[in-house]
Amino acid sequence: MKKIINKPENFVDEVMEGIILAYGDKVKFLNGDKRILLSNYPAKEGKVGIVTGGGSGHLPVFLGYVGQGMLDGCAIGNVFASPSSQKMADMIRACDRGSGVLCLYGNYGGDNMNFDMACEMVEFDGIETRTVRVKDDVASSPKETADKRRGVAGMVYAFKIAGAAAERMMTLDEVAAIAQKTVDNTRSMGVALSACIVPEVGKPTFSINEDEIEIGMGIHGEKGIEVRKMMTADEIAQTLLDRILEDMPLNSGDEVSVMVNGLGGTPLEELLIVYRKVHMMLAEKGISVYMPHIGEFATSMEMAGLSLTILKLDEQLKELLTSPANTPFYTNANKIPLK
Amino acid sequence: MKKIINKPENFVDEVMEGIILAYGDKVKFLNGDKRILLSNYPAKEGKVGIVTGGGSGHLPVFLGYVGQGMLDGCAIGNVFASPSSQKMADMIRACDRGSGVLCLYGNYGGDNMNFDMACEMVEFDGIETRTVRVKDDVASSPKETADKRRGVAGMVYAFKIAGAAAERMMTLDEVAAIAQKTVDNTRSMGVALSACIVPEVGKPTFSINEDEIEIGMGIHGEKGIEVRKMMTADEIAQTLLDRILEDMPLNSGDEVSVMVNGLGGTPLEELLIVYRKVHMMLAEKGISVYMPHIGEFATSMEMAGLSLTILKLDEQLKELLTSPANTPFYTNANKIPLK
Repeated sequence: MKKIINKPENFVDEVMEGIILAYGDKVKFLNGDKRILLSNYPAKEGKVGIVTGGGSGHLPVFLGYVGQGMLDGCAIGNVFASPSSQKMADMIRACDRGSGVLCLYGNYGGDNMNFDMACEMVEFDGIETRTVRVKDDVASSPKETADKRRGVAGMVYAFKIAGAAAERMMTLDEVAAIAQKTVDNTRSMGVALSACIVPEVGKPTFSINEDEIEIGMGIHGEKGIEVRKMMTADEIAQTLLDRILEDMPLNSGDEVSVMVNGLGGTPLEELLIVYRKVHMMLAEKGISVYMPHIGEFATSMEMAGLSLTILKLDEQLKELLTSPANTPFYTNANKIPLK
Repeated sequence: MKKIINKPENFVDEVMEGIILAYGDKVKFLNGDKRILLSNYPAKEGKVGIVTGGGSGHLPVFLGYVGQGMLDGCAIGNVFASPSSQKMADMIRACDRGSGVLCLYGNYGGDNMNFDMACEMVEFDGIETRTVRVKDDVASSPKETADKRRGVAGMVYAFKIAGAAAERMMTLDEVAAIAQKTVDNTRSMGVALSACIVPEVGKPTFSINEDEIEIGMGIHGEKGIEVRKMMTADEIAQTLLDRILEDMPLNSGDEVSVMVNGLGGTPLEELLIVYRKVHMMLAEKGISVYMPHIGEFATSMEMAGLSLTILKLDEQLKELLTSPANTPFYTNANKIPLK
């Protein structure tokens, strides 16, 4: 197993310690608990809290987005494993400022169950919560059963926009509605070229031949739609965009944000080549791109591959996307278009 | 060859087109030349120009740093190949605002020769230039012949600090002196776990066994100091830091910036585990860390591995490091410590 780690069983704790040593002014543990990260940025009194949670191994998702204008807290589990409902409840309590807390996370069985339990627990303390589940992966279930879809890189847009809404002192219901609109306007799909290795398992999560690519693979190695012979960058861009637009038709004059997200092992050069084709295909349809996001936003450790996310914008979403955010691994300062 | 590309011979042009499609408000080609990128941010009249150049395949180096508060221009060649002196000269002319241009680049034979020729060419046009070569890789030559050392991730600190000095309207000699001080205070060293594939070559640049790691490898696959059996993250951190501190001793009370740079295929989690150990070892010696940089700053496409860079700070360097910078792939907005 060729990974730069120490003991596999210490993987998550050491990552968390690294984050605190590097960014201890901006984020902190809740009472020393290495699985609950809270923002250290000054928060406005009465601001709605935004929290998330899920398994480790997807940096910058989720931890990297705790900070200013995005998440107030994040509970994490072992690699690809949900944190406990108890930790989620502790985090929700810590992030409530009297105006309630939005639980905004990817649609996975373990996370759903544990967050539901956590919300029940904090209800006894009089804390109001709302839940919005991100379900952007079009490959994970057909349109008829879109409710079963998994959450992938699109959750970063949801964190950003809900975070900006909360910063503007919107109410819990308003923030939840905006998060839901963002999710409804977001579609993603990915391809994988290689597997990753979960440290405590020590072998690849799946196998794929040297001349093959898996279309629609999930970020934990969930089976995709099909395995094909290796494709060109333009073919990959077309396959992903076609499938997304089939699910969420766009019209000439529409404006979108595009995320080309590296899964961990794919270089920035390749992401830009795919972005180029996506941009050209959208331009041909009269669709313009606002604030593209190209880089690693939601990974599967060292997995090679990428995902494409399209967020359909309206004026409100544009304004909230542009609103400042600063976290250890995300800032939009360099993404805002110059006038 | 498992890469997300189209025709290998179009690799660089398509990456450049992707950058312009994504960030065309912030950067532009010089007269449509896809190998010369210029900043589109408004520049102060009479500001010293800062330019660089080198081979492709290292994103965000170099292109990703053209923008506000860093580079004014960048000429790039094919993958791992120097751009021509003619292109460098065109770029220098475009970046001169009457106050001269600093050529700030990594110490490689081809780049040295071409930049020297370019500086001679523009001298005929009355453009003053200065040259500072980044030579931070301690593994590439012993201390006695430190002048032969290659430039690696440390060049990002030099771009940042020289860019900030130019923004403050310092003279060409002052900007060059500060860039030189930054280089003198910077040391780096890397390890590689896997090779990368140059698209037009189509096979790995070198071979390394599944249970081995190469210490001191260069970012083009230049031979390192030794090949060892795979090490733990803590052992890697210690090996790199020991070698750097042997070359540039630090004392209790010193302040440094630390860059843990992924070479392309290594996940952020592993970079954080290495940062953790480096931070702890420095803390034991009474050395504190200011504005750590953890992520991918100078890569070799999909190569797995990382490099460690230490920049010894003084008050002037700290202030310039903190000064705002915004480029498509770099901003320090989220790195500045909270008060």
